[in-house]
Amino acid sequence: MSESKKLTAGVIRNDRLMADGRVIRYYDTAGQARKALDARPQEDQPGIGELRLDPLVNEWIAMAAHRQGRIFLPPKELCPLCPTTGELLTEIPESDFEVVVFDNRSPSLRPPVGDWALPDIVGPDTDLGSAAGKCEVICFTAEHGNAFKDLTAQRIRVLLEAWIDRTAELSKESFIQHIAPFENRGEEIGVTLSHPHGQIYAYSYLPPRVEKMLAAATQYKKETGKVLFDQIVARELLDEERIVARNDRWIAYVPYAARYPFEIHVTPLYPVADLTELTDLDRAAFPEIALEVTRRLDGVFGIEMAYIAAWHQAPVRVGRDLLRLHWQITSVRRAPGKLKYLAGSESAMGAFIMDMRPEQSAAQLREVVL
Amino acid sequence: MSESKKLTAGVIRNDRLMADGRVIRYYDTAGQARKALDARPQEDQPGIGELRLDPLVNEWIAMAAHRQGRIFLPPKELCPLCPTTGELLTEIPESDFEVVVFDNRSPSLRPPVGDWALPDIVGPDTDLGSAAGKCEVICFTAEHGNAFKDLTAQRIRVLLEAWIDRTAELSKESFIQHIAPFENRGEEIGVTLSHPHGQIYAYSYLPPRVEKMLAAATQYKKETGKVLFDQIVARELLDEERIVARNDRWIAYVPYAARYPFEIHVTPLYPVADLTELTDLDRAAFPEIALEVTRRLDGVFGIEMAYIAAWHQAPVRVGRDLLRLHWQITSVRRAPGKLKYLAGSESAMGAFIMDMRPEQSAAQLREVVL
Repeated sequence: MSESKKLTAGVIRNDRLMADGRVIRYYDTAGQARKALDARPQEDQPGIGELRLDPLVNEWIAMAAHRQGRIFLPPKELCPLCPTTGELLTEIPESDFEVVVFDNRSPSLRPPVGDWALPDIVGPDTDLGSAAGKCEVICFTAEHGNAFKDLTAQRIRVLLEAWIDRTAELSKESFIQHIAPFENRGEEIGVTLSHPHGQIYAYSYLPPRVEKMLAAATQYKKETGKVLFDQIVARELLDEERIVARNDRWIAYVPYAARYPFEIHVTPLYPVADLTELTDLDRAAFPEIALEVTRRLDGVFGIEMAYIAAWHQAPVRVGRDLLRLHWQITSVRRAPGKLKYLAGSESAMGAFIMDMRPEQSAAQLREVVL
Repeated sequence: MSESKKLTAGVIRNDRLMADGRVIRYYDTAGQARKALDARPQEDQPGIGELRLDPLVNEWIAMAAHRQGRIFLPPKELCPLCPTTGELLTEIPESDFEVVVFDNRSPSLRPPVGDWALPDIVGPDTDLGSAAGKCEVICFTAEHGNAFKDLTAQRIRVLLEAWIDRTAELSKESFIQHIAPFENRGEEIGVTLSHPHGQIYAYSYLPPRVEKMLAAATQYKKETGKVLFDQIVARELLDEERIVARNDRWIAYVPYAARYPFEIHVTPLYPVADLTELTDLDRAAFPEIALEVTRRLDGVFGIEMAYIAAWHQAPVRVGRDLLRLHWQITSVRRAPGKLKYLAGSESAMGAFIMDMRPEQSAAQLREVVL
């Protein structure tokens, strides 16, 4: 297999097969040839896991027992996300790359074989499916020691193009209901590979938080005729005091009812359902605000902030006119040496307690000198 | 103030005022006089916080900014949960105690002053209340170095009596909707005081997980005429392979769709809505199974397991015939040196991925030699 596809912003995508049958996609801007072979021995891919219904709350739990043995914080010289140079054969056969996306070697969710449908949720009797979906890894750069905030604006534009492309392609799969690109950063939140990278989870079911957002937006639409998210952004614009950064096309704010010590929502001012609907102007203006907020985050305490940065999109097939694209960054860091933990109230009861006013964390973020 | 009250199982409760107006309740079995004065200087109590609505998912977030400065892992000789002996004046004025419950010095939720009502949830426009409720601390023993699993069966019986008493008394407050006694154990999950203790959170709103459990149970009742939780327990009894411990009155199992590497639900075989409804037989049989499961947990890896152990009760005023009492213990420890973290999928999307089959963790727990 060797396919080439032209995307916007001068990005070309080249696909290659990996030794075990997975696909790696190179997103390039300089017309590079991508012919390197994956010279590792072939190996079997793990089987598909189970989806079990937690009937207490009607939520699907994916069981992926094969992930227990995955690689854990390897030293730089054994990093599987670096390009292949010399002896070490990594996940990326080429000796350099810009942005790559490849199928996860230890996926929580896998494409189903043959016909597949999610069982209806009815309680403790109908409760088993296979863990259908797709998990991909996205590498932001070949530079092992960099972070998202160290990327060039041009690289973030390529990254955005890759996220858009993956969303468009995965949306076509009949078994996919929701697509979530996200980045986990920091050992504090369990990151096992420090090379700058993110993941793309494509679910065969609506993730519980998305389902709940959809229910809230549906009810609000019914009661007021308005789109909930648009009203939330209007209120943040009006209140102003929690705004962290903005440009012509995007706004970044600490939400009124933030649940983490540092939480930032970044959203286009002209609302869209998902990444594929972003206009050229939106796409061009994203790198600037993305770099500003991630640099502000690291600036607050002068240390690398652990965070989760996740794209919330409308689901693929439902709620397209009710849910809006936004990029949610949350950090459990509440002070140098102190983290927020989800303990009894948050974890067992789902009831969040915030030790810090959102207005205060917004002010701290704004005060960072860039 | 000095009140005395007789409870069951020979437990006597004595109440005393603390220097700043908070109440401490001694639960004793040996007729001890509890006359010691809190000799610390008086100090103002923090004000009540805010409840803000997160309109994206219609959940209340409690804002308790005054908690940011609370005490963090003090050494044993400065432990505020030890009895007062010599120079150090702790939270407990007496020089010894069995079980005590006192009002939290840095409460996330506080009793409201005057008339109070939770605003109706309607979206981003009606979204503010005061963080009404009550937070209490419960000390299991005067022995600083012990753990729950080291308590005597008789002490756990006293502890159960205290939980029951607090549930009964807090249920009478008109502003309380839900009562959750829980224990957080282990620095891995952010415990700031290592002295064996738990907390009691009394909420003025239904915590999100409780609300979702109530919705699932309501729907199930409507569709089948049955109580969901009873069917779940029936299935665990039938499947058998996830049962960890049992006696005549209680059963402990790893739930079919567990979401943590080690998760155990302990529930009475004759279902009740909350702690106050436990019969004398249930109460007498609880210490045995409670000790067995916590000892099995510590036995799996031969190390102190970090865990959250939370009592799920039916809410005070709704769903009394739909939700059932159970004690949920969850641990993020998946191996010595490895924790499960809630990252992108779990935290941002609410979608749990389990790296371990519940049948496997149940077998590991059963194999522990006590």
